[in-house]
Amino acid sequence: MPAEQASGNKVGQKSRRAIFRARDKYFVPAKTRRDNRRVPASEQLQGSKISAMNPSIVLRNATRAAVRRPLAQSVRIAVPALRVAGRRWASTEGAATTAAETEPTKKVTKLTADSYPNLQRGSHFSKITAEDVAYFESICPIISADRGATEDDLKPFNQDWMNKYRGQTRLVVKPKSTEDVSKILKHCNERKLAVVPQGGNTGLVGGSVPVFDEIVINMASMNNIRSFDEVSGILTCDAGVILETADSYLREHGYIFPLDLGAKGSCHVGGNVACNAGGLRLLRYGSLHGTVLGVEAVLPDGTILNDLSQLRKNNTGYDLKQLFIGSEGTIGIITAISIVCPQKPKSQNVAFFGVESFDKVQQTFVKTKQALSEILSAFEMMDSNSQNIVGQVTGRKHPLESKPPFYILIETSGSNPEHDSEKLNALLEDLMENEFISDGTLAESETQQKELWAWREGIAEALGHFGGVYKYDVSIPLKELYVLVDDVRAKMKDAGLLSTPENPENVVVDCVGYGHMGDSNLHLNVAVRQFDKRVEKVLEPFIYEWIQKRRGSISAEHGLGVAKSDFVQYSRGPTELAVMKGLKTMFDPNGIMNPYKYVKANA
Amino acid sequence: MPAEQASGNKVGQKSRRAIFRARDKYFVPAKTRRDNRRVPASEQLQGSKISAMNPSIVLRNATRAAVRRPLAQSVRIAVPALRVAGRRWASTEGAATTAAETEPTKKVTKLTADSYPNLQRGSHFSKITAEDVAYFESICPIISADRGATEDDLKPFNQDWMNKYRGQTRLVVKPKSTEDVSKILKHCNERKLAVVPQGGNTGLVGGSVPVFDEIVINMASMNNIRSFDEVSGILTCDAGVILETADSYLREHGYIFPLDLGAKGSCHVGGNVACNAGGLRLLRYGSLHGTVLGVEAVLPDGTILNDLSQLRKNNTGYDLKQLFIGSEGTIGIITAISIVCPQKPKSQNVAFFGVESFDKVQQTFVKTKQALSEILSAFEMMDSNSQNIVGQVTGRKHPLESKPPFYILIETSGSNPEHDSEKLNALLEDLMENEFISDGTLAESETQQKELWAWREGIAEALGHFGGVYKYDVSIPLKELYVLVDDVRAKMKDAGLLSTPENPENVVVDCVGYGHMGDSNLHLNVAVRQFDKRVEKVLEPFIYEWIQKRRGSISAEHGLGVAKSDFVQYSRGPTELAVMKGLKTMFDPNGIMNPYKYVKANA
Repeated sequence: MPAEQASGNKVGQKSRRAIFRARDKYFVPAKTRRDNRRVPASEQLQGSKISAMNPSIVLRNATRAAVRRPLAQSVRIAVPALRVAGRRWASTEGAATTAAETEPTKKVTKLTADSYPNLQRGSHFSKITAEDVAYFESICPIISADRGATEDDLKPFNQDWMNKYRGQTRLVVKPKSTEDVSKILKHCNERKLAVVPQGGNTGLVGGSVPVFDEIVINMASMNNIRSFDEVSGILTCDAGVILETADSYLREHGYIFPLDLGAKGSCHVGGNVACNAGGLRLLRYGSLHGTVLGVEAVLPDGTILNDLSQLRKNNTGYDLKQLFIGSEGTIGIITAISIVCPQKPKSQNVAFFGVESFDKVQQTFVKTKQALSEILSAFEMMDSNSQNIVGQVTGRKHPLESKPPFYILIETSGSNPEHDSEKLNALLEDLMENEFISDGTLAESETQQKELWAWREGIAEALGHFGGVYKYDVSIPLKELYVLVDDVRAKMKDAGLLSTPENPENVVVDCVGYGHMGDSNLHLNVAVRQFDKRVEKVLEPFIYEWIQKRRGSISAEHGLGVAKSDFVQYSRGPTELAVMKGLKTMFDPNGIMNPYKYVKANA
Repeated sequence: MPAEQASGNKVGQKSRRAIFRARDKYFVPAKTRRDNRRVPASEQLQGSKISAMNPSIVLRNATRAAVRRPLAQSVRIAVPALRVAGRRWASTEGAATTAAETEPTKKVTKLTADSYPNLQRGSHFSKITAEDVAYFESICPIISADRGATEDDLKPFNQDWMNKYRGQTRLVVKPKSTEDVSKILKHCNERKLAVVPQGGNTGLVGGSVPVFDEIVINMASMNNIRSFDEVSGILTCDAGVILETADSYLREHGYIFPLDLGAKGSCHVGGNVACNAGGLRLLRYGSLHGTVLGVEAVLPDGTILNDLSQLRKNNTGYDLKQLFIGSEGTIGIITAISIVCPQKPKSQNVAFFGVESFDKVQQTFVKTKQALSEILSAFEMMDSNSQNIVGQVTGRKHPLESKPPFYILIETSGSNPEHDSEKLNALLEDLMENEFISDGTLAESETQQKELWAWREGIAEALGHFGGVYKYDVSIPLKELYVLVDDVRAKMKDAGLLSTPENPENVVVDCVGYGHMGDSNLHLNVAVRQFDKRVEKVLEPFIYEWIQKRRGSISAEHGLGVAKSDFVQYSRGPTELAVMKGLKTMFDPNGIMNPYKYVKANA
């Protein structure tokens, strides 16, 4: 979309412009205006009354100040902010790495079987024979080493996008229908051939690639929208529909998919459900356990479980589909889903703040929830380290000029542009007046909204640029959310692994924290020049023990896969694990579904 | 609360009054004004622009018309409406029953074991011995026939509130802690003593009372709030906390329970979760599968499953708590829950409409969803028959004077009274202008809101007044939602069972339909003078087959219990049922948990 093109939502944008027209995109706290004049009570106009009466008075004043001189100077608290940011940033800044210098080496990814030597190929699994290949070939298209496929042909199915996990499959099958999946699984179960269900292969824990020679069942060819009801907003579609495709389809009909995440252009909705993806707007639209109404799945023995309800309410027995949500392909393959979708918002706003401390991030969160209530659709927190890395890798100028240690992105999604702007204005007044935020910017077009989101959504990709990333996706009680990042960074420094001005080539580029504040979900990422056992020893089990003490979750939304499979006991008790193993055994007695991962039945 | 006391939310009410002050509570479509003058475009002021500029112009005009002459005459379409309503109402109106005349006979409720002669007491279950009683007595308070408890003492635990189901327990145990429950179940499992978990005993399908001599485990003594986090809105409490108690507690802290239903004064939150209650605001706050974050449950062998997570995201294995949501006490006893609660709305509005046809009800639904979007918290539909019965039983005057065949109650819950009123005003303009609704009223205080809600929430109680009610709680695709009521009424008439002016004493008082339009959930109720096999033969399997054809659910929110246990196959396929039976057997191999109900493992 060209930069000058305004939001698709003309009503929303017109109103936005009307209110914010004369303003520079930066605003500053009222108290830090150039003249430092205390505004009389009559002019201060706090809260929603301001907006109702004359929403732009205070902001216009502030803007003039901002325009007159560079923002960093006009913000009284900018100096300590910069100092803090400088300290935090030293680790990567000192390394003086540039995008060009850190182009990742095109190394061959280590086999998962070698990275995890405790994993042994299941001795009860058969090996694929010529007859098996011929049978699968009779069902659907296949990619087979026995039919001339090279290692490169199989690489996209054997390897994950982070180049962290690599399997050894010799066969990929690409079913075109639920019946195809049923035939494939029936055969595999009878023959005891292990399989890996695979969607867009965008997972982060190695769950969608083989470890040994498991057959990959790739769902990309099952990609039809089956039905959509414009009155109820209920969508039914194949598992292999790409999330962005589903969302675009829904937008044409006045709805949106109730899930959004960075990998939307590649991930499959079936994979999203299988992994119980959380994403950027869970705060607003809730988890898939609430929005998914039905699942069609093929059980390991080939039986088709048709729980593809299009009803919002159905209390007729155990809610089986719930077991498939988040089961990571271990008890069956999801072939279709039905889901209730929210209406497309008529107005959206995105604001981006700089914040001086994590305490203020929390205070801002509480204020924001109260002020924006039903229109708040995202509250994302990012530390300065994450923003610096995005800037460094993309070469782009950060939307905020000051360098506070924390940033917040908030998004509103509502049905009335004027109302939404009024609510947001009232919040901004309050946050600035009370100095919860140090500075901020408000998108004035859909393009600007996307630009702001890119500073949040681009973090994962930017981090991957240096060679490798250790990713932790954890739930922690809110007040300690960021403490974990500080603790891990301190440990890396103590171990002499963190890059510093003195040792700019140390293996750890930086430890960064960002995530879905609204869900108490932190992404702790440790960017490294290459994967390194010394780093791993610092990270684990330290992080898991840290989380266990706080009754958090070692995997908030990424799942278990291979990566977290051996650590699930840090978040689940023995009774829970015993029940889970019972379920796995009940659904998949031969253990053919995505072995070596998740909650292992025989562990 | 005294009638003159305004809403607790002063801001909301002030704004409400400011806008609607000069108005009579009735409004009528603009086109049906007394002078029938077409309003010029400049005055019509449609949509949100109206509200922003001068919200009350059109409504004031309409109001003057309504004030000048009785509403029924001022509404041009009122005559056919009355005619339709007359026809529909004939069945009960003709019966000329008054509240006094229909005082239910204080009959002894038939034993469930006699009503369902296909049920036989499980021969593998032990009978309670003196040693058992002594053991239970050592754990917690009990009510035991062997300790002198009379039939009357046991009646509240043996019988449901509708006087439809009656069991034969001789022992009620009242645990005070999770450990008590654990000891009780461990003993029962070892001794093969069947049990019935019981919350507020407000269920509608006989799920919470015994059939034979099962021991009742009543949860009323486990009623502590365990914790509440004001930042995240996460509540953790014992299963026996009464829903209204939890809600009142939360309201003091600026939050509400994300579930509301008619039985809130008696039902337990644990029972709500065990039955996956839907209620009045599912449309807005989603199902318990999305809001419940954790469950603490005791498994049949006494093991405590601590899945009492206080995290919004936790992808570490199968989501076990989901199996307990809606399991109706068949795989364990829920002893505590944690749940994420929405903020208490700062403004609420309730409007009540009369509508001329079910087509217009649907059109109104679509319009309302579009206009109110994120602030819509309820959309309830009621037929005139239900309203007539409430009026007849309570002796109160209906809020609307006209007699259309359908009524709608809508509620908004938002964070800004002015914004919410503007949105609602715009909707009302639109609905009236386009004659989707024939007339309506808008509550001007919290007391009036409660009065309007009473015409919806009071239906179930009023229906029970005549002797008995056959209750069906079904999900049906929206466009056919009400057809089922018409079809059932026609069949009752054909069978000569429906009360008519000619046969006012026929057993069926009336067939009424109402429910949660927003969830496509119909409550079909057949009010009878006494339960009657002839009526049952007309109802079943006709209703179930009707629903099966439309892929609906035979139990949207009430669950299966005894009542629907034998009909689950109309909404679930053989594969689903086989998996459910597998689950039941896995969790409860001795089958001691709530036997004779739900999905029977051995059926």
